[in-house]
Amino acid sequence: MSEMSNEVGEILEKARAEGRLALTAPEGKRICDVYGIATPGEGVATSAEDAVALAAGMGFPVVLKIVSPDILHKTEAGGVLVGLADPAAVRSGYDRILAAAHAYDPNAAIDGVQVQQMVGAGHEVIIGAVTDPTFGKVVAFGLGGVLVEVLKDVTFRLAPLSGDDALGMLDDIRAAEVLRGVRGAAPADREALAGMIERVGALISDHPEIAEVDLNPVFASATGAVAADVRILLDPEPAEPPARLSRDEILASMNRIFKPRAVAVIGASAENGKIGNSVMRNLINGGYQGRIYPINPKATEILGLPAYPNMAAVPGEVDVAVFAIPAQFVAGALEDAGVKGVAGAIMIPSGFAETGNVEGQREIVEIARRHGVRMLGPNIYGYYYTPENLCATFCTPYDVRGGVALTSQSGGIGMAILGFSRTTRMGVSAIVGVGNKADVDEDDLLTFFEQDDNTHCVAMHLEDLKDGRGFVDAVRRVVKTKPVIVLKAGRTAMGARAAGSHTGALAGDDKVYDDILRQAGVVRAPGLNDMLEYARSLPIMPTPQGENVVIITGAGGSGVLLSDACVDNGLTLMEIPPDLDEAFKAYIPPFGAAGNPIDITGGEPPSTYENTLRLGLTDPRIHALVLGYWHTIVTPPMVFAELVSRVVAEERANGNVKPVVASLAGDVEVEEACEYLFDHGVIAYPYTTEQPVAVLGAKYRWARAAGLLRG
Amino acid sequence: MSEMSNEVGEILEKARAEGRLALTAPEGKRICDVYGIATPGEGVATSAEDAVALAAGMGFPVVLKIVSPDILHKTEAGGVLVGLADPAAVRSGYDRILAAAHAYDPNAAIDGVQVQQMVGAGHEVIIGAVTDPTFGKVVAFGLGGVLVEVLKDVTFRLAPLSGDDALGMLDDIRAAEVLRGVRGAAPADREALAGMIERVGALISDHPEIAEVDLNPVFASATGAVAADVRILLDPEPAEPPARLSRDEILASMNRIFKPRAVAVIGASAENGKIGNSVMRNLINGGYQGRIYPINPKATEILGLPAYPNMAAVPGEVDVAVFAIPAQFVAGALEDAGVKGVAGAIMIPSGFAETGNVEGQREIVEIARRHGVRMLGPNIYGYYYTPENLCATFCTPYDVRGGVALTSQSGGIGMAILGFSRTTRMGVSAIVGVGNKADVDEDDLLTFFEQDDNTHCVAMHLEDLKDGRGFVDAVRRVVKTKPVIVLKAGRTAMGARAAGSHTGALAGDDKVYDDILRQAGVVRAPGLNDMLEYARSLPIMPTPQGENVVIITGAGGSGVLLSDACVDNGLTLMEIPPDLDEAFKAYIPPFGAAGNPIDITGGEPPSTYENTLRLGLTDPRIHALVLGYWHTIVTPPMVFAELVSRVVAEERANGNVKPVVASLAGDVEVEEACEYLFDHGVIAYPYTTEQPVAVLGAKYRWARAAGLLRG
Repeated sequence: MSEMSNEVGEILEKARAEGRLALTAPEGKRICDVYGIATPGEGVATSAEDAVALAAGMGFPVVLKIVSPDILHKTEAGGVLVGLADPAAVRSGYDRILAAAHAYDPNAAIDGVQVQQMVGAGHEVIIGAVTDPTFGKVVAFGLGGVLVEVLKDVTFRLAPLSGDDALGMLDDIRAAEVLRGVRGAAPADREALAGMIERVGALISDHPEIAEVDLNPVFASATGAVAADVRILLDPEPAEPPARLSRDEILASMNRIFKPRAVAVIGASAENGKIGNSVMRNLINGGYQGRIYPINPKATEILGLPAYPNMAAVPGEVDVAVFAIPAQFVAGALEDAGVKGVAGAIMIPSGFAETGNVEGQREIVEIARRHGVRMLGPNIYGYYYTPENLCATFCTPYDVRGGVALTSQSGGIGMAILGFSRTTRMGVSAIVGVGNKADVDEDDLLTFFEQDDNTHCVAMHLEDLKDGRGFVDAVRRVVKTKPVIVLKAGRTAMGARAAGSHTGALAGDDKVYDDILRQAGVVRAPGLNDMLEYARSLPIMPTPQGENVVIITGAGGSGVLLSDACVDNGLTLMEIPPDLDEAFKAYIPPFGAAGNPIDITGGEPPSTYENTLRLGLTDPRIHALVLGYWHTIVTPPMVFAELVSRVVAEERANGNVKPVVASLAGDVEVEEACEYLFDHGVIAYPYTTEQPVAVLGAKYRWARAAGLLRG
Repeated sequence: MSEMSNEVGEILEKARAEGRLALTAPEGKRICDVYGIATPGEGVATSAEDAVALAAGMGFPVVLKIVSPDILHKTEAGGVLVGLADPAAVRSGYDRILAAAHAYDPNAAIDGVQVQQMVGAGHEVIIGAVTDPTFGKVVAFGLGGVLVEVLKDVTFRLAPLSGDDALGMLDDIRAAEVLRGVRGAAPADREALAGMIERVGALISDHPEIAEVDLNPVFASATGAVAADVRILLDPEPAEPPARLSRDEILASMNRIFKPRAVAVIGASAENGKIGNSVMRNLINGGYQGRIYPINPKATEILGLPAYPNMAAVPGEVDVAVFAIPAQFVAGALEDAGVKGVAGAIMIPSGFAETGNVEGQREIVEIARRHGVRMLGPNIYGYYYTPENLCATFCTPYDVRGGVALTSQSGGIGMAILGFSRTTRMGVSAIVGVGNKADVDEDDLLTFFEQDDNTHCVAMHLEDLKDGRGFVDAVRRVVKTKPVIVLKAGRTAMGARAAGSHTGALAGDDKVYDDILRQAGVVRAPGLNDMLEYARSLPIMPTPQGENVVIITGAGGSGVLLSDACVDNGLTLMEIPPDLDEAFKAYIPPFGAAGNPIDITGGEPPSTYENTLRLGLTDPRIHALVLGYWHTIVTPPMVFAELVSRVVAEERANGNVKPVVASLAGDVEVEEACEYLFDHGVIAYPYTTEQPVAVLGAKYRWARAAGLLRG
């Protein structure tokens, strides 16, 4: 691509030298030619065969126009023919034009016949690229006209992208069906459209100084795609790609931070109510087994541990320094910690960028960088890592170990995570506040969690990303083995971006985030509570092996609502084969309904629940079960909970490992039953048919993104 | 309309007599003419002025065609001109056509020039009407072409409808903006489109034997709308409108059923575990103060009350008979109860239509009708009416009185209502199972709840409606003063209806339900838990007086999520005027943010919450408050809960009555704080930013439907 780039580079350099922020139409067309982006073809033919060859080269239909210095009014002279759709029409058209011209003016000099590709037929689409503040160069695709302008039916991907990804974009718009041909319209040439998207992605990636590309409209016929209008905008000062550490560098620090042999608390205090006291108590009471060094120039002992006046005085190596001092003292203490060689600075203090003290934040970042110290925060509650009994926070200890690591950009959300965890006894590996994200961000944490055997799922609350591409790279690696749940806040606030092109105007922040996160394999949570419930459920739910979901319910009413929820969550209600239908029918009353949902009817004894559940677990064609329980005196809630837990455990032991979720409708005893079920690995919720299916849907979204589903 | 109807009636009668299920194109056009539905105009002119007059009458542009028995190939003869857009073009066109025809064949006899209205320009829309199994005649409107076929962008309303309602339909499609003119297109003639919708509604309402009307496409220009194709399908056996009781008749029975002076329990039993024992115990233990008559031929006393062998033996008048006997004995006992003159038969027994025993159900309906007895069920758990301490169910008593009446079509959902109510201490006026709805249905219950001073809100779970129009009529009356929340199950199951027209194919059950329920003013709950939370919150939340919502938050992170939730729920974040902004700023730290959300920052003392809350309550420009709390040691959860409850109560006493909802982020103590707030009339939820805003959004939806919002 270097030769291509050279020519394009010259055009861009010329515009830059002239201080222009937009290319001219001929410049745009020339760049398109270089990149193989089709624009309407044109040429002059001097014979009928010439005309046919030109037309065939650019694609039918074409327009023929007489070229003669003596004929000014071409139409009047019969010198224009439009819509010539095949070689024969071009051949005879060429002859008719010459004859008409001759008849019009026998003395006219004829230079030839201009052949122009006709555009405007076929599907109108828009293909573009913009420079997103978070993700850098992204390409956009949408249906043109009303669909994109009124319904904003557009999709985004990171640039550059593969041809397969470009093809995927064609299916990612709501009106995707249109391109396959509806109402008798010919389908669009998908390869041509995907090729054009891919080339636009290459163009904007090869040339960071291109800010936006707008091919609008592009007309796609059954045999090609042509960009009828090209607009290219320039950025006089393109952003530098962010610096990134290598995976090994990140892990070297993160492993020391999450599994420290020694932690120093800078500003440790014996006084109740001080942050430096809370951190000390949480480290000790949480059961952390490494060394704890309180740092306080005015104390010799804090909470029974020898105190040191400063980091230099600490006798041994220190992995982590937790800062619990006012902002104005941080720089000096950080310098000391850097000299001491800590791997991580846990920067609890506020009073930096979040209060406008941008300079102070820049200063401590610079100190940390200089010493190779990774800094978490500032302006955070700290972090938990339960496998090490590590509670380096000013909140209270949390010790229910489990598979999910959670991070939050906001302290309030962190507190909600803690409270929710405690009340639901959610099994947690880590809870981490990232606060101002002056240094350590989600990418670093993902890199650690990816290889952390104690973490099976990651859930992140975030408001922005410092390096969108770094995040996507990290997510793509992690989701191969672990779900990544993201609550992206600020999703309804449209970016107040100055839009220089159609594509730019369509690239509202959240749409770009949504498309790119989904494409990366993220399970996006629509709200805080959803994130928490996904985090609680996904790590303990087995991964489904296929798309066949079956509902077994004791309440017909729940069955209908559970079906609704399955459709809402993109789950596939299995079409039950006749033999399986018969097998279920054998267990249920004659007025029950097999099919799917399987309505075992109310008032059935435990054996009916057990028999149908066991059949659902053992039949290999079924991949996931949704249970609807109805509180009766024949099968009380705890009887149901115990039998389901037992049968699920028995069948897991038999190798029948499938996700099972349950909705319990009944009096308050169902709450205890749900807790029991959760404790036994069965996701169960009272008074809701939506929640259990939503978490199953989230697991499926991840399993699909990770490529784990058969068929 | 009778003369019109006569002519249309003759056309329909002819088709019926010929056994046709579809009208011919000329028949359809004739009916359109009668109803003033514009179809492409046509006529023959014998002078240029004639042609101009005809064209002006039908609207430009027009096509002119020579009419001559001697000219077969009109185009070849220069006898066709298209796209004549104004009088001058028609006038000259007329002359040119005649001249061309004369030149082509000087001897041809010329009858005149046909003037045809050209359609195909302007906006392509579809207008239709179908006979919905639930709602009867409904009209449909959508944008034609790709939008309606691929994106199903269509909306429905009951027929007949007013011109205003028809105009409203134009704005109810997602792509409504298109009709107002985008990308340089002229806007559509809204009055003409609405008029055509209104006329189609009149047509199908006037003639029940018309099953479907399909005007597709309709072309709407800036100056009119023309139906280019008309398709009318017939129903050989149109359904009779359902019989309805008058409001007075319904209330006469319902008042006796909900406020009975005496209740008989047919099948009362002293034996634990029997339904007839549970019902007796619940009536007694629930504290019902009327007379209770156990009916059991084998007992003389049950639970301390004298028993009677049958209804005839009961000494006094009986308002309600609760049936707790097997299905096969119901008919006889119902006959007795009818003779005794009960107002209501509470039909707990199952074994009727739900198990296939349709005949048995028909039999008991007939008996009840004959005696003027209203029957609830069969196949239900019974009903609660807390103002009378009435627990006529086999579940357990529920006694937390409050403003919401709940009904459920499914027993399982009824049990979920009970459990949820108990665990949240939801204030309830009634819980009613409607089961098979063989007689009493939602319409009857709405009619009672409308005038019941103990009920301030109605929440209904339903899977179908026996009489959709009766339901809409009842809802429209109720929502003027009380919110009606509906959980419509089965919403994702598309009706498996044989579609004879485009409109029919688009009329999936749920889209029709959704549009018509919303139009009636229903607050539709997306799921079971949403219905329960709306039911819990709406009756205790004051009605907002306007659209200005303000967020006050201690956690910036919650503020962003609460903003997202406001936008998701259709709430308007108030643009804070400068003076109010200054007033808020005076209470918050300099690095906090006024604007909206108002970020008071974490770590603030109770006074900051109190000052900003009080300002929000007292400033008359603010109509609703969303609070975001962040758990800190400076303002612990219960301190926040108590201060908010106190300030809200004080300002209510001052006449500042506004909805206040709160999201609490923190450790588990926030759960107790939320309970306290709920108990004091402030809607509050822990660990979620979505739920408090969702219930506020539900209240707003009702307030808008009831016309209670200013501006």
